[in-house]
Amino acid sequence: MLNWDDPLAPAPQEAITPPQANPVANPVSNPVLSDDAGQAKRAPVPQVDLKPVNPDDKRVINGMTDINQLAPFKYPWAWEYFLNANRNHWTPLDISMAQDVHDYHHKLTLEERHVYENVLSYLTTSDILAMRNIGLAVMEKMSAPELQIYQARQVYEESLHTWTYQHCIETIGLDQGEIYNRYRVVPEINGKIQIANERLNSVLRADIDLQDRDELHNFLMAYIFFAAVFEGCWFYNGFSPIFALQRRGLMKGTAEQLQYIMRDEVLHASFGIRVAKQIMLEENIRPDAKAIAEMWAECEAAEEAYAGYILRDPILGYSKDDHVGQYRFIANRRARSLGLEEPYPGAEPTLSWLDEQANLRKEKNFFETRVTEYQAGGLKWE
Amino acid sequence: MLNWDDPLAPAPQEAITPPQANPVANPVSNPVLSDDAGQAKRAPVPQVDLKPVNPDDKRVINGMTDINQLAPFKYPWAWEYFLNANRNHWTPLDISMAQDVHDYHHKLTLEERHVYENVLSYLTTSDILAMRNIGLAVMEKMSAPELQIYQARQVYEESLHTWTYQHCIETIGLDQGEIYNRYRVVPEINGKIQIANERLNSVLRADIDLQDRDELHNFLMAYIFFAAVFEGCWFYNGFSPIFALQRRGLMKGTAEQLQYIMRDEVLHASFGIRVAKQIMLEENIRPDAKAIAEMWAECEAAEEAYAGYILRDPILGYSKDDHVGQYRFIANRRARSLGLEEPYPGAEPTLSWLDEQANLRKEKNFFETRVTEYQAGGLKWE
Repeated sequence: MLNWDDPLAPAPQEAITPPQANPVANPVSNPVLSDDAGQAKRAPVPQVDLKPVNPDDKRVINGMTDINQLAPFKYPWAWEYFLNANRNHWTPLDISMAQDVHDYHHKLTLEERHVYENVLSYLTTSDILAMRNIGLAVMEKMSAPELQIYQARQVYEESLHTWTYQHCIETIGLDQGEIYNRYRVVPEINGKIQIANERLNSVLRADIDLQDRDELHNFLMAYIFFAAVFEGCWFYNGFSPIFALQRRGLMKGTAEQLQYIMRDEVLHASFGIRVAKQIMLEENIRPDAKAIAEMWAECEAAEEAYAGYILRDPILGYSKDDHVGQYRFIANRRARSLGLEEPYPGAEPTLSWLDEQANLRKEKNFFETRVTEYQAGGLKWE
Repeated sequence: MLNWDDPLAPAPQEAITPPQANPVANPVSNPVLSDDAGQAKRAPVPQVDLKPVNPDDKRVINGMTDINQLAPFKYPWAWEYFLNANRNHWTPLDISMAQDVHDYHHKLTLEERHVYENVLSYLTTSDILAMRNIGLAVMEKMSAPELQIYQARQVYEESLHTWTYQHCIETIGLDQGEIYNRYRVVPEINGKIQIANERLNSVLRADIDLQDRDELHNFLMAYIFFAAVFEGCWFYNGFSPIFALQRRGLMKGTAEQLQYIMRDEVLHASFGIRVAKQIMLEENIRPDAKAIAEMWAECEAAEEAYAGYILRDPILGYSKDDHVGQYRFIANRRARSLGLEEPYPGAEPTLSWLDEQANLRKEKNFFETRVTEYQAGGLKWE
């Protein structure tokens, strides 16, 4: 993979160093060269290059540049994602849930309550998984700090989402322990979590060597799964049943919370897809077509089972077929973003209102206590 | 460590399971028991307990409860830290740096510029290290989700601090690459970073078994170092040279940025000390007195060398002795919080204005564009 003719390539004695389990784990093991006396003085080792990092040497993974030097950037777009995410700050306490308490207990049908509870139950487990994926499996493998820094924000956003679900569950008065445990006892929820968990566990292992092509391919597949399916489809589409209630004037506080979460998730998916494409470019690798086809098939089956469970009795204006149809339509969109073939050619949107409802250019100022306008522009949906 | 007579202890067949490298990595490998048909159905395994998590079974480390179930809490104080941290949201763009640009180029002496640049250089490298410590070494070892969730916020705050330094460096017009690289070429900065990096690397290893008493002790020492010294002393005391400029009306924008960072760091140190004490209690372990004494000696020597470098030529109102004296005074405070002996009995504060200046109950409303008052109460300094 290393181009020996590239004038920017590291000197051979550096490049042939056997890869460490985590090549960025030891960035300051280089001894200090200065002759200046001091407590911290260490023996000089002449081969070490102590020049500032050259951004051209940075890589998404498998990089050998100093992880502690943020700038100059090689990936300025990652920094832009970070700045943009910070503009979207909100907390669940900003949104009133008073009407939702009344709606849940006095207006929702039994079938609608079933939808509401199970969607929350799925989402809350999913967001803890998403946090652990980025925080524990992905971030450490990034060898450019500007990528880690957006992911640090992403880890936090997942925890903010977890707080949001907890706030909804507690405000409505549901049994928290039972809701959090549901993913373990309902097979159709467990199916999706299981798929995600297997992907996560396959990249959590500590001895992963991303210079090995098979390991690299497995990591790429996990990355694509989490960005394009887990965040890009399952989250994106996962809020829709609540938005369907919102369109009928029900559970509007919860729906507004989920709109803010959805904004974050769209950024996560789009950042993840961009990183995945950069890995493909830098490492000269493509996901295996068969592995991708299997991923889509497995994920669609799990989504169908899930939709069949939450909508076993249809609710007004939202059916299992709506849910699955929209999943296929969004899956095509994510595949195109990745430069991959559409898994469901010709799939039409079944929830034509979704993108519009998801897009948050609100006319009212929902932060009633703030003067500043909530930043909402600039999202690209493809 | 397990008390077999404790009615809350896990059943023996669970307790004698050999510890996994990461006991929380595989929380949903339990098969689903329900008889309900579905795509996700898996074979039943009767031994598995699918009841919701009992909070009494949660542990800080070495816990075996499901990491995906946030509530009910065992550590409600951790959740309070999370809520409190979210109230402190700010970004470096909220604070004007215009006067600082003028001050740096037209008012600061050469000696003061030397202090300013090197403090920023030390802080920026330190905060990336702090982010990596929490995000990559600590968070994964926590087996209660309410602890992970505060740490997710903490990881983000470190990235926000990194942004802040970057914003200062860029606004003032310093050479970013050179500043970020300085910790590698100045031995007195490198000395402190090296100590932190050795602690970090000793707990980054993937095969750490926290049921082994030696490994556990090493982890506890690293945890104490990062909470009590790195965040509790080095950060806490690290901003003071800039505050000394602020007291003379110089670099007030930077100083205000650092006051907000300091608030975060105080929470980090206090949370970390609380977690360390909880680990001591649950795991029935105390840090070895000799190891603690060596830690203080090594850290003081590094701090003295650092202070000697940044203040090699004293500036008005702030000397090397002020810096080191205050370090000793704060070190005593952190040791007391941990229930340990004071390392420097009788040390008096040399910067009596520091706590007051650090405490951020501001009379003016610094978020000029916001109506809400910045939340500032509730910090306990011990």
